[in-house]
Amino acid sequence: MRLTVIGSVAFDSVETPFGKKEDVLGGSATYASVSASFFTPVNLISVVGTDFPMRHRTMFNKRNIDTSGLENKKGKTFRWKARYHYDLSYAETLSTHLNVFEGFRPEIPKNVTSKDNLLLANIDPELQDWIFEKINPRGLVACDTMNLWIEHKRKELLKLLKKVDLFLLNDAEARQLSGETNLLDAAKYIAGQGAKMIVIKKGEHGALFFSKELRFMVPAYLLKKLADPTGAGDTFAGGMTGYLSKTRKITDSVLRKALVYGSILASFTVEKFSIEGLLKADLKDIENRYRHFEKLTKF
Amino acid sequence: MRLTVIGSVAFDSVETPFGKKEDVLGGSATYASVSASFFTPVNLISVVGTDFPMRHRTMFNKRNIDTSGLENKKGKTFRWKARYHYDLSYAETLSTHLNVFEGFRPEIPKNVTSKDNLLLANIDPELQDWIFEKINPRGLVACDTMNLWIEHKRKELLKLLKKVDLFLLNDAEARQLSGETNLLDAAKYIAGQGAKMIVIKKGEHGALFFSKELRFMVPAYLLKKLADPTGAGDTFAGGMTGYLSKTRKITDSVLRKALVYGSILASFTVEKFSIEGLLKADLKDIENRYRHFEKLTKF
Repeated sequence: MRLTVIGSVAFDSVETPFGKKEDVLGGSATYASVSASFFTPVNLISVVGTDFPMRHRTMFNKRNIDTSGLENKKGKTFRWKARYHYDLSYAETLSTHLNVFEGFRPEIPKNVTSKDNLLLANIDPELQDWIFEKINPRGLVACDTMNLWIEHKRKELLKLLKKVDLFLLNDAEARQLSGETNLLDAAKYIAGQGAKMIVIKKGEHGALFFSKELRFMVPAYLLKKLADPTGAGDTFAGGMTGYLSKTRKITDSVLRKALVYGSILASFTVEKFSIEGLLKADLKDIENRYRHFEKLTKF
Repeated sequence: MRLTVIGSVAFDSVETPFGKKEDVLGGSATYASVSASFFTPVNLISVVGTDFPMRHRTMFNKRNIDTSGLENKKGKTFRWKARYHYDLSYAETLSTHLNVFEGFRPEIPKNVTSKDNLLLANIDPELQDWIFEKINPRGLVACDTMNLWIEHKRKELLKLLKKVDLFLLNDAEARQLSGETNLLDAAKYIAGQGAKMIVIKKGEHGALFFSKELRFMVPAYLLKKLADPTGAGDTFAGGMTGYLSKTRKITDSVLRKALVYGSILASFTVEKFSIEGLLKADLKDIENRYRHFEKLTKF
């Protein structure tokens, strides 16, 4: 099934203990759609400015990512500047310039239908909700978020939560949203808000899955080198929903595999800056890492 | 096979965000031997003072833990006082009184033989080495340690490392010992020092296993309530070597299972203060948690 991805396309300037890059391609929808495109065709809905080079659009198109919903608006592309210290789970935001994203309410391209699956990658929950209502999706709806929205748009986020099938957030965000320190309690609270399936991402420590019927936990793939954690969560969300879109029926077993694929795709992202790690990987690399992951965890 | 456990038997006074207990039974050999005793008969070698109540010795004996090597010395039992904050991976030691442990060089009881497996639970590596030389073990030798010895007895610890089969330490200690931030690099360094098998314990994030032939990772069992992390690592070491002592041949599959059992035994320990969680559990509880753990992780 096709997957529609809405979120940010951005230029990131990032410094980590392992290097520094300026104005590289980033944004939640970039990571999520590139990651999902390994498994399924993607419709990307986002907005960029006149400074957005053609080669990035070409890159998307070459990977089976339809960019007819990637609007070109007069102005500058969204920019984010951040720094990571040795605690790589926390990004210190130095500046955020929404630019063309200010008040963005996209045209929905004709090839996006309510039958497609939908990933609301991390962006203002008001925009996520607006898209949801506009598309009126009948497929799987996944939603990612971040601490900023939990703090400033809690009401809007909780309203959206009731409509989504799969809600993804990290451990600190789960604690922030629920007011619970224990992740089992946090998941229970979030389920009580209406999310049918919940993924709590724990960065280098793996991820947890919760639904009424299923609990599942997966460690993170062990890496020799790590360059930049930016986009790991978006990649996870894209990989997981991409894999779920590829399969005809979402069973317990498919959900478990989807979580592992999300984790593995994220491992490619963090090995390099921007989406370089994802661009270098092919399906064979992903399958190899999946099989290695099996070996690393089976007992 | 019988397992000899050497380490501390102590009275702990511990404060965590979830409660406070004074002078409760603790010590690395206490946690390790009670944990191991679920799988195999244990010979406990340690020392206590005249303030050590008979009921603790009786408790050990009832659990198939031979205490003929638990020396009674004039003086006070080893005492440790510590506080945990919300980062439960770090214990702030408030005071340590070695008391009868000062200069302790035990008599080896007659029923301890060089054929038995040996667990050198966390204690001064000079004492661990002294015991090793005295027993001259031909079975499996496992060794646990802590940050204190890495800092103050590095040379002695590295000397001992060359003699042990299985070396256990936590992630912070692995980084401290190796000078490497990446745990794969840390494991490589430690293997280079002579340890054939290495377990890096990551507290609430599970554990990693490394040998030339095998790499394995296991998440930690998810808990609703946590009371006190004291002894989790010792319990892990005891559970793992206890399970390995129960089996005739140590294969890859057995090693994987042993790691899972170590993790599960530790989950009982942290649910209560002291060894209360372990004492409440029986083999059926352990098997139930093992099967639940399988369900939680298989894909």
